[in-house]
Amino acid sequence: MQVKDMMFDGHPHVLKAQQFSRSFAEKVFIPLSDRIQKMLAVRSCSHLLDGKGMISLFTAESTRTRGSEEIAFELLGGKVILSVPGAKFSSAMGKAESLVDTVRVLSDYCADVIVVRNDSDTEMPIAEIAERIQTPIINAGDGADKDKQHPTQALLDLYTIHTYLGAIDGISVAMIGDLKNGRTVRSLCYLLAKWKIGKLYLVSPPGLEIGTDIKEYLAKHNVDFAECNDIRDVAGKVDVFYQTRTQTNLGSAAVDRNDPKNGFTIINGEVVRMAKEDAIIMHPLPCLGEIVRAEVDGDHRAVYIDGHKGKPSQLKCGLITRMAGHLLVVSPEVACSLL
Amino acid sequence: MQVKDMMFDGHPHVLKAQQFSRSFAEKVFIPLSDRIQKMLAVRSCSHLLDGKGMISLFTAESTRTRGSEEIAFELLGGKVILSVPGAKFSSAMGKAESLVDTVRVLSDYCADVIVVRNDSDTEMPIAEIAERIQTPIINAGDGADKDKQHPTQALLDLYTIHTYLGAIDGISVAMIGDLKNGRTVRSLCYLLAKWKIGKLYLVSPPGLEIGTDIKEYLAKHNVDFAECNDIRDVAGKVDVFYQTRTQTNLGSAAVDRNDPKNGFTIINGEVVRMAKEDAIIMHPLPCLGEIVRAEVDGDHRAVYIDGHKGKPSQLKCGLITRMAGHLLVVSPEVACSLL
Amino acid sequence: MQVKDMMFDGHPHVLKAQQFSRSFAEKVFIPLSDRIQKMLAVRSCSHLLDGKGMISLFTAESTRTRGSEEIAFELLGGKVILSVPGAKFSSAMGKAESLVDTVRVLSDYCADVIVVRNDSDTEMPIAEIAERIQTPIINAGDGADKDKQHPTQALLDLYTIHTYLGAIDGISVAMIGDLKNGRTVRSLCYLLAKWKIGKLYLVSPPGLEIGTDIKEYLAKHNVDFAECNDIRDVAGKVDVFYQTRTQTNLGSAAVDRNDPKNGFTIINGEVVRMAKEDAIIMHPLPCLGEIVRAEVDGDHRAVYIDGHKGKPSQLKCGLITRMAGHLLVVSPEVACSLL
Repeated sequence: MQVKDMMFDGHPHVLKAQQFSRSFAEKVFIPLSDRIQKMLAVRSCSHLLDGKGMISLFTAESTRTRGSEEIAFELLGGKVILSVPGAKFSSAMGKAESLVDTVRVLSDYCADVIVVRNDSDTEMPIAEIAERIQTPIINAGDGADKDKQHPTQALLDLYTIHTYLGAIDGISVAMIGDLKNGRTVRSLCYLLAKWKIGKLYLVSPPGLEIGTDIKEYLAKHNVDFAECNDIRDVAGKVDVFYQTRTQTNLGSAAVDRNDPKNGFTIINGEVVRMAKEDAIIMHPLPCLGEIVRAEVDGDHRAVYIDGHKGKPSQLKCGLITRMAGHLLVVSPEVACSLL
Repeated sequence: MQVKDMMFDGHPHVLKAQQFSRSFAEKVFIPLSDRIQKMLAVRSCSHLLDGKGMISLFTAESTRTRGSEEIAFELLGGKVILSVPGAKFSSAMGKAESLVDTVRVLSDYCADVIVVRNDSDTEMPIAEIAERIQTPIINAGDGADKDKQHPTQALLDLYTIHTYLGAIDGISVAMIGDLKNGRTVRSLCYLLAKWKIGKLYLVSPPGLEIGTDIKEYLAKHNVDFAECNDIRDVAGKVDVFYQTRTQTNLGSAAVDRNDPKNGFTIINGEVVRMAKEDAIIMHPLPCLGEIVRAEVDGDHRAVYIDGHKGKPSQLKCGLITRMAGHLLVVSPEVACSLL
Repeated sequence: MQVKDMMFDGHPHVLKAQQFSRSFAEKVFIPLSDRIQKMLAVRSCSHLLDGKGMISLFTAESTRTRGSEEIAFELLGGKVILSVPGAKFSSAMGKAESLVDTVRVLSDYCADVIVVRNDSDTEMPIAEIAERIQTPIINAGDGADKDKQHPTQALLDLYTIHTYLGAIDGISVAMIGDLKNGRTVRSLCYLLAKWKIGKLYLVSPPGLEIGTDIKEYLAKHNVDFAECNDIRDVAGKVDVFYQTRTQTNLGSAAVDRNDPKNGFTIINGEVVRMAKEDAIIMHPLPCLGEIVRAEVDGDHRAVYIDGHKGKPSQLKCGLITRMAGHLLVVSPEVACSLL
């Protein structure tokens, strides 16, 4: 299957943003997502995965990600045959087993795909677990991997940018906030490096700079990037504001944003007023204060929850691209037939 | 749509007991529930919501309410496309976001209705959240609102009374227990005030009396009510015993029922022996000692778990009326066609 | 219905391993499971329970058991209309009600079967709860009963043994580990006693010996058994190694396996090398160190997670037999038609 080869580095899983080529994104993923967006509007896609089953296994609840993965599958006609919203329950009962064992157990239960979220850094990385089983795995966020990743988020972010700006080449992006432990930022950097983007600004408080591994990757792929710690210095130059929260659940210390030593890494009315007219403001959510919602929510550039100009919000792009991902993983031939 | 107008104060949501008129209850809700009761018995209603999707979002688990809302939807042929039984999980991971944001996120996920339970008093009231989204919301219990409400419980209670007593006008009701924080009692008072009931006895331990707002509402609607703290004083006069537990989860202090200062607000064999032959004993459950189960459960007047005379229990009335509610919210034209 | 009579001691529930006769196992349960195994491989069983609904109620999460019960039902075309993965949520909110009340509540919600796991020893035993309701109950593990049981696990274990060894008569079995509180061991003893097995070795650390009630039962049924505390003494003689974890969640103290006073009750490479070529190593999982996985997992005799020789793993046998169980409980006439 040609499409399958393009998407998956020779395996059936969605594991890391690096596995997706520019060609795959442009010829398969974005057109397929566009098609699904139109079908979803008239609900004409609700039998594409009839008879297929999905399992979701989250070591910690994530209403957004679990929600959109499960609903995406159900809207295609599939069944979520098992949902485990917080696998640590077992642990609380003194019956904890390793994540890899749990996934191996579930892989024997006839699902067509298993969506896994891992927020613990003591478990085997999802990419290694995937090598041990046959059932396709979708990495819905891995905090264990030293190469922390959230590849489905990167795909939805890419699709959001493409939807609003019409292109990836040439755009300038500011990644803002906790770039050290934010796995969405890491995955999005890997993916954007496949294009010739304009400038990439990495805006973080001191101590939460992006990892050296990412900087080396960006340099190797000739991405023009710069680091700073005040978003106001670059706000007028960027097409995409990609704001993120401090990942206290993945090991980052909380940041006192009132301390000037920590730079200026929030988006408020002041930043919005500096922004280009057709820039967009994105956030993977949840948002915990790093966007001053009262000053930003209503602006036409804020696309994280509300869409504008008849286009889907970033959230809705997540639902659409996860539908595309499920189709490609579970029924690539059906996905092909829609292109 | 005429029915829709009757049910919903000009919006598509189920938010407060006050929004339902007597005319809506008598001409639409009760006949529809009767019809569903018959269809359910022969399982002829299992395709009425084919292709429709529901999301349930509970900040704290409630097996009963979540169970009957979800099962009601599934029994009509719909799909529960996402179930979040305890939204505070996120909070435990330091990722807590506001309830309003979570509902806004979920409202972008193509559900036809979102059922929300909120047990926290620091979140935005469900009725205010509903103003910010398009997807219909069903309030499955709100502890945030200063006007604490549980409107679907009020509807099921009304239907139970009507099922057993054949009328609402003229009946006398004793509300017993924690009337201060019990949202089911508050919602039922709002609803019963639309009829000309007989006498309403408000029987609570000192300190847990019903709020002034409700008393003012009752007075304004010419409901004849009296307060006391010993159910035995009025047990022989009432048609409906509506017993409730102390709402320690909503802020009430536990009550020592052995202390005579706290009055007598339980139902035991003694109270049952005083009761009219055709009275009914109701409880929204869970029951935590305020009914002496060993002395009351077997009595033909106790309808909270077991039905009598071929009629559904209060619990089963909950399932039936939640099916009616889903139909009215999601497919009012289908609901109409059944009348 | 003849089949129903064979399976269920005159009631519609799955409660205790003793209720299944040898004749039922050989003429109904094993052939039905074989049939389902073949149907599952080609997915030709996915409409056998169309229109049927299941509820699962677990007082503590068990990914494995809840997963296989729910997926088994869904793979047959049924719907899990409500899943309660941790009924103690209510408790945390100060609204705890008894398990029997919760089951009674759920039994009024139109399910065709309720699967119940109870890990608390303060609740009414599942077998007594079942006497109070009409809806069929499947006991998915009961820790409350003084006669602790896990009958569906016993059925899957029996089927695994039969699948690999072709017979039950004549085989020798070593039960290893915490035999005092391990409910899977107790249930499997009850079931195996219906055959003429070879020798039964009960291998436990001192203090975790099997209960007197089981020993009396075995003696009464002429099972030849012996107790010891070093698996190496009997490893060369047994056909089935049935390893179990220490049930700290059901009241057992943790065992220091490095202390020689505690005997030798693990399976490692040394034990495997002593084992017969066609023996099998089983474990109900989760495994918490009592099998040295790095030394045992790859061996062809280890069947707990991986199957061998084209045969299903013990886990997969669980899925298959739970499908058989659901069919027998919910639609015995359909089950019959497959034999």
